Amino acid sequence: MALLKPFSDSKGRITFDLVRKEIKQVEKQISEQVKAFDSEVEPFIDYICNTSGKRIRPALAILAGGSLGKISDDNLKIGVISELIHMATLVHDDIIDEADTRRKTPTPNAKWGNGMAVLLGDALFSHALLLATEFGCIDICRKVGTASREVCQGEVIQTQRRFDLSLTKEEYFRIIAMKTGALFAASAGISASLSGADADTEAKVYDYGLKLGTAFQIYDDCLDLVGTEDNVGKTLRTDLEKGKLTLPLLNLLETAPAATKKQLQKNIKDQKPLEFEGLVGDVAYKASIESALDTAIDMLDEARDNLNCLPANDYTTGLLEITNYLEGLIAKCRS
Amino acid sequence: MALLKPFSDSKGRITFDLVRKEIKQVEKQISEQVKAFDSEVEPFIDYICNTSGKRIRPALAILAGGSLGKISDDNLKIGVISELIHMATLVHDDIIDEADTRRKTPTPNAKWGNGMAVLLGDALFSHALLLATEFGCIDICRKVGTASREVCQGEVIQTQRRFDLSLTKEEYFRIIAMKTGALFAASAGISASLSGADADTEAKVYDYGLKLGTAFQIYDDCLDLVGTEDNVGKTLRTDLEKGKLTLPLLNLLETAPAATKKQLQKNIKDQKPLEFEGLVGDVAYKASIESALDTAIDMLDEARDNLNCLPANDYTTGLLEITNYLEGLIAKCRS
Repeated sequence: MALLKPFSDSKGRITFDLVRKEIKQVEKQISEQVKAFDSEVEPFIDYICNTSGKRIRPALAILAGGSLGKISDDNLKIGVISELIHMATLVHDDIIDEADTRRKTPTPNAKWGNGMAVLLGDALFSHALLLATEFGCIDICRKVGTASREVCQGEVIQTQRRFDLSLTKEEYFRIIAMKTGALFAASAGISASLSGADADTEAKVYDYGLKLGTAFQIYDDCLDLVGTEDNVGKTLRTDLEKGKLTLPLLNLLETAPAATKKQLQKNIKDQKPLEFEGLVGDVAYKASIESALDTAIDMLDEARDNLNCLPANDYTTGLLEITNYLEGLIAKCRS
Repeated sequence: MALLKPFSDSKGRITFDLVRKEIKQVEKQISEQVKAFDSEVEPFIDYICNTSGKRIRPALAILAGGSLGKISDDNLKIGVISELIHMATLVHDDIIDEADTRRKTPTPNAKWGNGMAVLLGDALFSHALLLATEFGCIDICRKVGTASREVCQGEVIQTQRRFDLSLTKEEYFRIIAMKTGALFAASAGISASLSGADADTEAKVYDYGLKLGTAFQIYDDCLDLVGTEDNVGKTLRTDLEKGKLTLPLLNLLETAPAATKKQLQKNIKDQKPLEFEGLVGDVAYKASIESALDTAIDMLDEARDNLNCLPANDYTTGLLEITNYLEGLIAKCRS
């Protein structure tokens, strides 16, 4: 079964032996897209495409295609488009988070300044949406455009509601479903439809991506608290500094005694270092993270349920194994 | 003929009595598009759409449509899409220029910070490209996507080549054709094609927009030097501070005696205040601006030539009058 186990390669990219060839083709297509930029812009885009993106979205597109039949160029292309949009958002996220490192290399904003990073992200965005026209199908352009707008709006709402102590868990879930779930969902769902999935199957594969992406974001939000920069390879602890109220923090605010809650809220508002362990005790702090990780696990179970609609084959197993892989990462996060 | 003379209204928007009704419809459509955003995002987009954009691009779309027949909703819509893309670029430009005022109101970055401004621009961009799918025509999506990518790439190259003293005039013209010409051109050209223009007519109307936009950018670059913030209503003198080598400066570098040129180059590199008049003399300084304005006038002549392919009617005259209006602004710039 090792064929179907995803693993992270030396560049931090998710890969599978089962679809090794297709993942290589995706990299080749990304390189070709880099060359489609103006020659003065190309070197910058090349750097971005070589240093960011875990290629999870292309992996989903490839596996969704394979689960429904032969993997075609169209399945690869929707993966490439999703990854280009994703990389554009990473470039802009790093500006907002003032992050200077991603995957142990300097971020575009650290390397060329915020201005260039803004514009390079824009160029990537528009190129991705332009590439979607190559399918010659309005419906696909509409789905890609909708996903792209959803991601951007999720980011707007998240940023606007920093330091907003009235943020509910429901609102948090909505935000992360938009900013991360939507593009996972589009990559898997559109790829399924390109492989001839009926509307019901497409909706289920879309929902699989949505839940997987949301679970992934919860995991990533926990990692910001418990990871080490050396292991994760990017700037961490930015969420709290930036007033981003993620699930572990919402859990803490929900369970803390009134006086502690008040102090927590004050520290968040004042942008003081939070020093959770001291404030709420090590047990409560860890429990807030455990509970968030439990929520991610529940979300993964819901993601898996959607796969029942797909034919039993190696590619469907591959989609299942991605949820198991994330579950494994979550387990590591706990230890 | 007053019916056909464009003028600038109290909000700095270009309007015409001839197409007053259609321009109102464009505003209404823009308001409707604002409402299509998530309710948490809408107020921000509303502010942007109310405080930025001269609506020149929609005016071009309306007039191009009228010149070829009845003005339809499609002509208005391509104008709206162009204006949304344009406003997205303004939001991002203001971040890069660290400008805090536009049209005498605070810019989004001044009001909500750089992070929000980055993301709101992204949301506007993706919405505009999504809106283009409503035509149900891949060819239009492709043209809109191409124009959008061209604008972004023009901005990347311009930003990347700040302080680059090897920049030639040809390179400057290429950059401004991309960053400003491409969207003027797309708005007019696509609108013409939506009104049934044949390929040759569409190409000429496109070229009219390209030349008009390029002339407009040269004028705007001169205005950054000679305008007053009170008259222009936005932060000025940002180009030099930011090392943006615009046409007047390229003219000066070309004509200055060797020693002066060396000093100019040194001041640019060192980001010193340039104090042109003192350095090169008032006569040479003014001549460099005059010469740039002459180039813009030549470009307007070329723009006008393209209109010969259109039927003689009020709307075609309207397109001509836009070039005359810009010529009038240029004349004011000289005095």
